[in-house]
Amino acid sequence: MPELRKDPIVGRWVIIAHERARRPHDFKAEPTSHAQSKVCPFCEGNEDMTPPEILAYRDSGSRPNGPGWRVRVVPNRFPALKIEGELDKRGDGIYDRMAGVGAHEVIIESPRHHVTMATLPEENIRDVLWVYRDRLVDLKRDRRLVHGMLFKNVGEGGGASLEHTHSQLIVTPIVPISVWEEMTGSLEFFNYRGRCIYCDMVQQEAAVEKRVVLDTPHFTAFCPYASRFPFETWIVPKAHESHFENIPKPAVDDLAHVMHQVLNKLELALDAPSYNYIVHTAPFDHSGLPHYHWHVEVIPRLTKVAGFEWGSGFYINPVPPEHAAAFLREVEIATSHPGVAARERTSGGRPQPLASKVP
Amino acid sequence: MPELRKDPIVGRWVIIAHERARRPHDFKAEPTSHAQSKVCPFCEGNEDMTPPEILAYRDSGSRPNGPGWRVRVVPNRFPALKIEGELDKRGDGIYDRMAGVGAHEVIIESPRHHVTMATLPEENIRDVLWVYRDRLVDLKRDRRLVHGMLFKNVGEGGGASLEHTHSQLIVTPIVPISVWEEMTGSLEFFNYRGRCIYCDMVQQEAAVEKRVVLDTPHFTAFCPYASRFPFETWIVPKAHESHFENIPKPAVDDLAHVMHQVLNKLELALDAPSYNYIVHTAPFDHSGLPHYHWHVEVIPRLTKVAGFEWGSGFYINPVPPEHAAAFLREVEIATSHPGVAARERTSGGRPQPLASKVP
Repeated sequence: MPELRKDPIVGRWVIIAHERARRPHDFKAEPTSHAQSKVCPFCEGNEDMTPPEILAYRDSGSRPNGPGWRVRVVPNRFPALKIEGELDKRGDGIYDRMAGVGAHEVIIESPRHHVTMATLPEENIRDVLWVYRDRLVDLKRDRRLVHGMLFKNVGEGGGASLEHTHSQLIVTPIVPISVWEEMTGSLEFFNYRGRCIYCDMVQQEAAVEKRVVLDTPHFTAFCPYASRFPFETWIVPKAHESHFENIPKPAVDDLAHVMHQVLNKLELALDAPSYNYIVHTAPFDHSGLPHYHWHVEVIPRLTKVAGFEWGSGFYINPVPPEHAAAFLREVEIATSHPGVAARERTSGGRPQPLASKVP
Repeated sequence: MPELRKDPIVGRWVIIAHERARRPHDFKAEPTSHAQSKVCPFCEGNEDMTPPEILAYRDSGSRPNGPGWRVRVVPNRFPALKIEGELDKRGDGIYDRMAGVGAHEVIIESPRHHVTMATLPEENIRDVLWVYRDRLVDLKRDRRLVHGMLFKNVGEGGGASLEHTHSQLIVTPIVPISVWEEMTGSLEFFNYRGRCIYCDMVQQEAAVEKRVVLDTPHFTAFCPYASRFPFETWIVPKAHESHFENIPKPAVDDLAHVMHQVLNKLELALDAPSYNYIVHTAPFDHSGLPHYHWHVEVIPRLTKVAGFEWGSGFYINPVPPEHAAAFLREVEIATSHPGVAARERTSGGRPQPLASKVP
């Protein structure tokens, strides 16, 4: 059973994975880049290579754990947390620990191997978003669990271990420290001004325009004022709502469009970079918070994080968000229409380098 | 001039480097691994390739910016922050910013190219530690600056851009968020229990022993209970003291020994891994804090950080600190005596893999 342990100084929890513990000599070779096995366990037809599915959106008539699905959710074969067991909260001298209870699921976003989230048609992205929502709604019924984090790792620099397009959901029995910091920071602002800070950000970004990447009926996508990373892009809903799982259907349709646009802009501008995206949403045990506002953060992995960043929490960003947004705005992406197959990847339409556009 | 910008939600500052701003096409090639130039600017004899030195420990009779030094401090040629100018604190709508004023210095730890901090004799490490202390004492006189972070990046995974052994000092006009979190977390503990949490940790680690790597008259080196990373090792002074720059001379001698031992143990156990170490010390404008306790955190870079860690602040560590410490304890390193040249690197004396030692 994995174990959750708390740093007694800053309150950060870590997952100590006893069972899949690695030995020193495991690290001596080049950090394992999980050699791609020849057969992909996420491809249609290989459903028996994964644990049994938790959920799938399927063609009518198709059978669980067989072909005929569009999006498929399975337990992670090497879970960071395990769904069985009690929390078993205990002290250990001055320290605190509990059992590593939680859920760790993989959302396979397409039955086909040679697509990416950016090349998926918008209707498929909508399916993925509905699956995100369905899994959160299901897992929040478990009274041991308090927060669900949806995220996607793409490419070597993004920490992906399998190429086939997928995202992950980790549901934890405590609120992760970064979520806690967002909750308390936004509450402080709310207590002081009586407004949601994310709503204020959306308003100011729309007014000054220079950091906006894309503006749609339900969302503003922008490079945040204090971007940690080059081309960091946040997708924030215009309507105030603390919980992703409460997203209305028209907003799902629009979000699929925005994600398609933003991910394609990043792919074209940066030549298919490694990236992560993370759905930031409020913990389960609250609802309708006036101070918190769910959103998606997309982070291309272009720069290295080293000792200064690790020690200080300060980040050095060599691309001002105003430059990044100006460049991304210029990248034109065709809207994908339902039923249209993944577009061919070409370099046509690639904009000029930033140097010639931004003074 | 670089700019400091504050994230309005969590209060994290970032450095936006306007001047060395990179263009999107700079990121398209493989992330720049700063091609090693053939001539190393940090080697003895190439002193004119760096900006003029700020400090050097030199043989008597040698001249500034010429050969004859043991440790040499120069301004970073591409500084994240600049020492000239006013802070110019201003609002920008709902956001906060100030000018990127600060110091960014490089401590060149040896005139010779083919040594590492681990292979340096202890007397050289003592010099490096005294330089750390001298630079902090000098820079804290600048009333615009509030915190100094000393850190070292080693290897590709550690984010090093030059091979020649060196560390860096970044002094900032605001307290970095991670330091702030340690300060407030330890203050909370102190207010509740009336004791320093780090002193408590040292006591408990000494009592239970299983996470201790090395115990000396002035320091306990241990793998912390909630280690974020495999083989993470903290070096904590036994005597309570909030500020590194107040370190007594006998403790400097002992710390040089402990660092020599710990870095060599990691080198041998993990085959010269990439790593970072960071000196955690209190901000300048306090002194003699009863709740904070300076220390050094050494972090081998063996695992990747991906979307979950970025989003949650949770870390998944596949090596329990008890296993890591047991393994590192077994690695025997000869004590380096003053005047002894860097030892030959051999794999002799390497301990058995952990699997055979720990059940």
